[in-house]
Amino acid sequence: MTDRYIVNIPSLHKEVGKKVAAYIDTLTKPIGSLGRLESIAIELAEITGEDFPNVTPPAAIVFAADHGITDEGVSAYPKEVTAQMVYNFLEGGAAMNVFCKKIDAFFTIVDVGVAEDIAHEQLTSKKIRHSTRNFYHENAMTKAEAIEALNVDREEVQKMIEKGSKAIIVGEMGIGNTSAASAIIAVITQKSLQQLTGPGTGLSDEGMERKAQIIEEAIKKRQPNPEDALDILVKIGGYEIAAMAGAMLEAAKNKLPIIVDGLICTSAALIAKLINERVVDYMFIGHHSLEPGHESAFTVLEKEPILNLNMHLGEGTGAALAFPIIESASNMLRDMATFADAGVSEKST
Amino acid sequence: MTDRYIVNIPSLHKEVGKKVAAYIDTLTKPIGSLGRLESIAIELAEITGEDFPNVTPPAAIVFAADHGITDEGVSAYPKEVTAQMVYNFLEGGAAMNVFCKKIDAFFTIVDVGVAEDIAHEQLTSKKIRHSTRNFYHENAMTKAEAIEALNVDREEVQKMIEKGSKAIIVGEMGIGNTSAASAIIAVITQKSLQQLTGPGTGLSDEGMERKAQIIEEAIKKRQPNPEDALDILVKIGGYEIAAMAGAMLEAAKNKLPIIVDGLICTSAALIAKLINERVVDYMFIGHHSLEPGHESAFTVLEKEPILNLNMHLGEGTGAALAFPIIESASNMLRDMATFADAGVSEKST
Repeated sequence: MTDRYIVNIPSLHKEVGKKVAAYIDTLTKPIGSLGRLESIAIELAEITGEDFPNVTPPAAIVFAADHGITDEGVSAYPKEVTAQMVYNFLEGGAAMNVFCKKIDAFFTIVDVGVAEDIAHEQLTSKKIRHSTRNFYHENAMTKAEAIEALNVDREEVQKMIEKGSKAIIVGEMGIGNTSAASAIIAVITQKSLQQLTGPGTGLSDEGMERKAQIIEEAIKKRQPNPEDALDILVKIGGYEIAAMAGAMLEAAKNKLPIIVDGLICTSAALIAKLINERVVDYMFIGHHSLEPGHESAFTVLEKEPILNLNMHLGEGTGAALAFPIIESASNMLRDMATFADAGVSEKST
Repeated sequence: MTDRYIVNIPSLHKEVGKKVAAYIDTLTKPIGSLGRLESIAIELAEITGEDFPNVTPPAAIVFAADHGITDEGVSAYPKEVTAQMVYNFLEGGAAMNVFCKKIDAFFTIVDVGVAEDIAHEQLTSKKIRHSTRNFYHENAMTKAEAIEALNVDREEVQKMIEKGSKAIIVGEMGIGNTSAASAIIAVITQKSLQQLTGPGTGLSDEGMERKAQIIEEAIKKRQPNPEDALDILVKIGGYEIAAMAGAMLEAAKNKLPIIVDGLICTSAALIAKLINERVVDYMFIGHHSLEPGHESAFTVLEKEPILNLNMHLGEGTGAALAFPIIESASNMLRDMATFADAGVSEKST
C-alpha cells in the first residue's frame, strides 16, 4: 500500500517545444517581444506535446480540511470558518468562485477532512477524518490516512479530464493550513519559521511570533525527514495538502498543465516534487503571494510566478487570476498571423 | 484654435471610493488579502462614481502613423512595415487582435499618419499627413497638425462610449515610434537618452547607441519646452502619440478608466498629463515593459504597473493582457458574498 502513491510521469516533449519556439519567431511581432507569453507557449508545447496546445476549459478543484494545530491559537479565524466557507464555495460566493466563473473553469469542492459534517448535494465528500490531529502534540495523521489523502483526488482529476479539462488549478480552504504549509516549507527548505511565517488570514505581529514559535517547537518534536514526503505529511501535514499534491501528480501523469497558487498550494507542490521530481515540469506558479514563505517555496521549484498582485488569500485565487495569461499564450500561437501569411517585411538589420 | 485641446476632467468620486473600501472589508476573505485587486476596485469606484463599477465591454483603439525620423536608421524594421501591419490588424492577425478578442473588446484601428495610402473598408482613416517630418532636421509637425491629432480621436472615443464601452485601451502601430516616445520621455523626465533607449523592435547594441545619439542630438536642435505639451508634440512628437493623448483626455472627461500600455502609450500619457494633470487619476498602467524608458515614464505618473511579463511589443498588448485583472476586481465587488450574507464568522482576534 505504501507505494500506491508513486506515479509515472512522462518526460517533456522538448522537441515539440523547439519546433514551437521556432514557429513563434515567424509570428508578426519583433523576436522575443511577447516575453513571458512566448516562454509559457513553449512550456505548454513541451507539456502537451502539441504544436498548438489548448488550455481551455480549465478545471479548478478545491480541497477543504481542518487542522488540529488550530487548538494552539495559530489562526485569526475560528475553526468553524472552514465549514462555513465550504458552504460559501458551494453557493458561489467565495473569491475563487468569482474568478473561476470568469475563466469558465469546471469547478468542484472536495471535503477531505473538514471537522464538521457538511450536507450539500454539490459537495464531493471524501472525508478522511474530521480534522487532522494537533501536530504540536502528536502526528497529524496516520500513514494510511496520508496515502488515502494522496490518492483521494485521482478520481476527481480523471472526472475533470473526461469532461474535457485541459489544465488543472488546485485550491484549498482550511483554517490553520498556513501553519501546516509553513512547517512543510521550513522542513524542506531548512529555513527558520521566523523567515517563513506570515499573517495567514490576518494575525497581529505578536500572533505571528507565537505562530512561528509553536510551529518551530512542533517540528522539533516531530522531526520529519525532509526527503520523505510521506513522513512529512504524517507528522505535520494536512489532508487537503496531501490531496493537492496527489492531484498535481495525477495531472502531470496525464500531461495536463498545473497552475499552482500561493503558500499552501506551493507546499503541496514541494510534497509532490519529493514523490516524483518530474511533476515540476508541468507546473506554472500563478502568482507571488505576500506570505513570506511563498518565495522560499517556489524558489525550490525553480519557477517564476506569473503575477505579483500583493495577494495572500489562497483558495487557488492567484492561479485562477493567472489563467488568462496562460490562455493568451495559447491563443497567440493559434491565432496570430506569420510574417509570410500577412505579407509583412522582416527585420532589415 | 490653440486651446481646443483643453478638456475639463471631473474630479474623482473619493467618497464612493471610501464606501467601496469599507464594503470590500465585509466580503468573505481576510482583510486586504486580495491586495492589488482591492485597490483597483476602489480606484474604479472613484473613477466611475459607482458602488459596483463595471468595466465590460472595453474598447481598444489603435492608432497608426509613420515617423520621419526612420530616415536616420533608428529602427530595425523598414518603414513600410507600418502599413503592412495595419493590414494585419485589419485582418485580425496581430497580437493585439488576439488579446482583444479574448477580452471581448470593441476594436478599431485609426490611420492618423501612415506614409502609404491604405484602402480597407474597416479602416478608420483620419490621416493628418503621410508620416511626420524627420525631427532630426525639422519639426515633426505643425502646431495645427498637433492640435488636429490631439482632437482626432474624440469622435472615436464617443463612438465607443455610444456602443457601451466601459473602459478604454489605447494602442499604436508605427515603425520608429519608440524614437519619438523616448525623445518625449527624455524631455519630460530630463533623463539622458542612454538611460532610456532600448532595442525597440530589435536593434543591436550598436544600433541602440546610434539611436540614442541621434535622438539626443535631435532634442538639442529642437529644444522642446518640457512643460508645453504642444511644443513637445510639434518638435519631436508623432501623430499617433498625440491622438493617444487626446483619446485619454476624452476618456477621462467621460469618467472611463484608461488602461495604459508600454513605452509609446506612456509617453502619450505624459503628454496628456501636461495638458490636464487630472487625466492621470483615470489611468491604470497595464504592464511594465522591458523598454528601459518605460519605468522612467510611469514613475512620473506615480503608478505601479499591473503585470510584468518581460514584454516590449506595444500595440496596446500589455494593456489588453492586464484587462482581465481589472475585470476580476470589478467581479469581486459584484459577485462575492459578504460575511453576513454567507453566515461566515469574522476574525476572532
